[in-house]
Amino acid sequence: MVAPKKILMIVLDGLADRPVAELGNKTPLQAASKPNLNWFAEHGKCGLMDPIAPGIRPGSDTSHLALLGYDPDKVYTGRGPFEAVGVGLSLEEGDVAFRCNFATIDENGIVKDRRAGRIKEGTSQIAKDLDGLEMGGLKVIFKEGTEHRAALVLRGEGLSPEVTDVDPHAVDVKYDVCQPLDPEAQRTADIVNEFVEESRKILKNHEVNRRRKEEGKLPANIILPRGSGVFPHIQTLEAKYGLKCAAIGGVTLVRGICKLAGMDVLDVKGATGGLDTDMDAKGRKALEALESHDFVFMNIKAGDICGHDGRADLKVEVVERIDKMMGIIREGYPEDTVMAVTSDHTTPVAVGDHTGDPVPVLIYGKGFRFDQVKDFDEISVAQGILSRIKGTDLLQILLNLSNRAEKFGA
Amino acid sequence: MVAPKKILMIVLDGLADRPVAELGNKTPLQAASKPNLNWFAEHGKCGLMDPIAPGIRPGSDTSHLALLGYDPDKVYTGRGPFEAVGVGLSLEEGDVAFRCNFATIDENGIVKDRRAGRIKEGTSQIAKDLDGLEMGGLKVIFKEGTEHRAALVLRGEGLSPEVTDVDPHAVDVKYDVCQPLDPEAQRTADIVNEFVEESRKILKNHEVNRRRKEEGKLPANIILPRGSGVFPHIQTLEAKYGLKCAAIGGVTLVRGICKLAGMDVLDVKGATGGLDTDMDAKGRKALEALESHDFVFMNIKAGDICGHDGRADLKVEVVERIDKMMGIIREGYPEDTVMAVTSDHTTPVAVGDHTGDPVPVLIYGKGFRFDQVKDFDEISVAQGILSRIKGTDLLQILLNLSNRAEKFGA
Repeated sequence: MVAPKKILMIVLDGLADRPVAELGNKTPLQAASKPNLNWFAEHGKCGLMDPIAPGIRPGSDTSHLALLGYDPDKVYTGRGPFEAVGVGLSLEEGDVAFRCNFATIDENGIVKDRRAGRIKEGTSQIAKDLDGLEMGGLKVIFKEGTEHRAALVLRGEGLSPEVTDVDPHAVDVKYDVCQPLDPEAQRTADIVNEFVEESRKILKNHEVNRRRKEEGKLPANIILPRGSGVFPHIQTLEAKYGLKCAAIGGVTLVRGICKLAGMDVLDVKGATGGLDTDMDAKGRKALEALESHDFVFMNIKAGDICGHDGRADLKVEVVERIDKMMGIIREGYPEDTVMAVTSDHTTPVAVGDHTGDPVPVLIYGKGFRFDQVKDFDEISVAQGILSRIKGTDLLQILLNLSNRAEKFGA
Repeated sequence: MVAPKKILMIVLDGLADRPVAELGNKTPLQAASKPNLNWFAEHGKCGLMDPIAPGIRPGSDTSHLALLGYDPDKVYTGRGPFEAVGVGLSLEEGDVAFRCNFATIDENGIVKDRRAGRIKEGTSQIAKDLDGLEMGGLKVIFKEGTEHRAALVLRGEGLSPEVTDVDPHAVDVKYDVCQPLDPEAQRTADIVNEFVEESRKILKNHEVNRRRKEEGKLPANIILPRGSGVFPHIQTLEAKYGLKCAAIGGVTLVRGICKLAGMDVLDVKGATGGLDTDMDAKGRKALEALESHDFVFMNIKAGDICGHDGRADLKVEVVERIDKMMGIIREGYPEDTVMAVTSDHTTPVAVGDHTGDPVPVLIYGKGFRFDQVKDFDEISVAQGILSRIKGTDLLQILLNLSNRAEKFGA
């Protein structure tokens, strides 16, 4: 067998779209100037990809799992465990984990702000007082994330992820009581409720909240868990394929999934996971990471934000900024690298949320089959030789092209 | 999330074909004038669909189950249960059911006519005398369908659908003895055989047959079961997706499947399920049904009949009549509706039966991606952005486009 190649996978989060009236019924990808993306399309092969399956609306978590080769139907029960890993916790198989918010309630338990005035400081101090509690023989692990975000992990025997959210996902209503979705989850629900009440007691007169009051800020006087999930058995990409992996991306959830996959999650100066991110810096970091890693994964979140916010004009700008970064990749492209550029899901500006439309995908590298597609957009790529693939196919295709796939049979 | 849209699915039964010599090697869809179908193709997106999977020859039952989102590999063991529901019986999970014919045998049990002279009258009177029998502790349910058709249901413990047909599917041979296909099905086979012998006794001198003899008609002197299947657990589309559903179609089997799916099965004056059906009336009924339902399903059988009869000329005419109906749909098209037009299987006039060739599919609706395909036929649609999908994908794709799909993940 010939020498293995390096793999670069670039996920343009939520960038895929539908025709937009204000763009003359073009998609943002069609409307934008993107010479570099088009160059890669012209010299590579293209197609459409269903991140999960046709018509299925992916979350960012399920789609990223699929893109990294994990079957979400087998490993995904809820986002909690991936958020928990994202904030830096080490989970064990069987742990039940929740995404949490620091929130503000009034004396009657009515939620006044689901983000406690977008609290930024003091959350680690609060988290220390909630972490390590013992409830019903179980260990409670709690850690703050960025701003109002946190993660709760329950560790012990007999836990179940089949429980409802405490976060009511609305304000001016009372927070919900955690309910079991099957009888075996009663104990888990009881402990979640006990934890929530305990958080109220501990936070009521907490030093951080006394300080916030003085500053005229809303107190973080309750923890609202949601997104229950059980931590699955996940084999790292190194264990599965012998790949030394690096990941670049600002979003906690994506970073969590990459950590689970055993990747080195790199920090990039100026990369924020927001619209203001320094894309060029991320592109340069990806090239640098390829020197020391077999597989480099990069997520760029900005397109998804424009989709959620319904901003077609901004989304066109984001495509053009991404294309500029692709110029850096093109210029520094290391020979003997296989690259895929795709999206984790469609986020149409006209819908404002993820949809189940397929996303464009291109694969580039020297010596591979290439097709007649010259434009990287949702319509043009359908004429490409990749035809219509699934998210879980992508890494396998890249392993094949990089001479890293095991032969099935003899 | 934006507002949900309505869904219209039109299934042109067996309309897909292969090139026909007498049509200058065009398919009937290619040979016919069909401005309305082409208009929808031009303004929508197209592709090919394998109703079950590539190369698998679908029955009408398995393909319709797939189109309604049920995995035929999981719910289908034989056509009996769907025929039984189609004739109006209420089945329970675990019932084993058979499609039956009223037939004519001679005194030695040789089948002379598998349809008892295409008997039309008196079948309900005969059915009453067979319904409600008790055999081996089991309850026997029997009901006539249209003309020579009927359904047999066995209800009780320890039944198995793994038994052979009694109907020999040929004349001038003796009818078959029902055989178990595995040891556990012995009891079921015994009861089927007992029922067949009982039917001979009861029908021998039945009043209906005395009358038929006087009129010089063949007697219905035996019931021939076939198509054994076990009634599966089927969740209605309303329970699965919250859809209020209506179905329009004349064929018993299709009506049965739609009833199972919890749809309101509508009657249309002039609609027969045959070549003489009033297609325009069906089109108008579909538009009307969309006012009160979320999902309207319509089957038009005529193309399949031409395929089975080997009539290319008639099939071209059927396409043109369908196209006229599509003009009515086009004119009255309710905004905020997602429509799919497809076929449940290919029925080539040169073969005279269903084949496993993929079928064309188009999806139309405002604001969605569209492609360059301008002709709705088996060859042109392959250039479309739907690429090649499976039958079970179709409803999920429509749920996504109608803003009715649940997100998988966060």
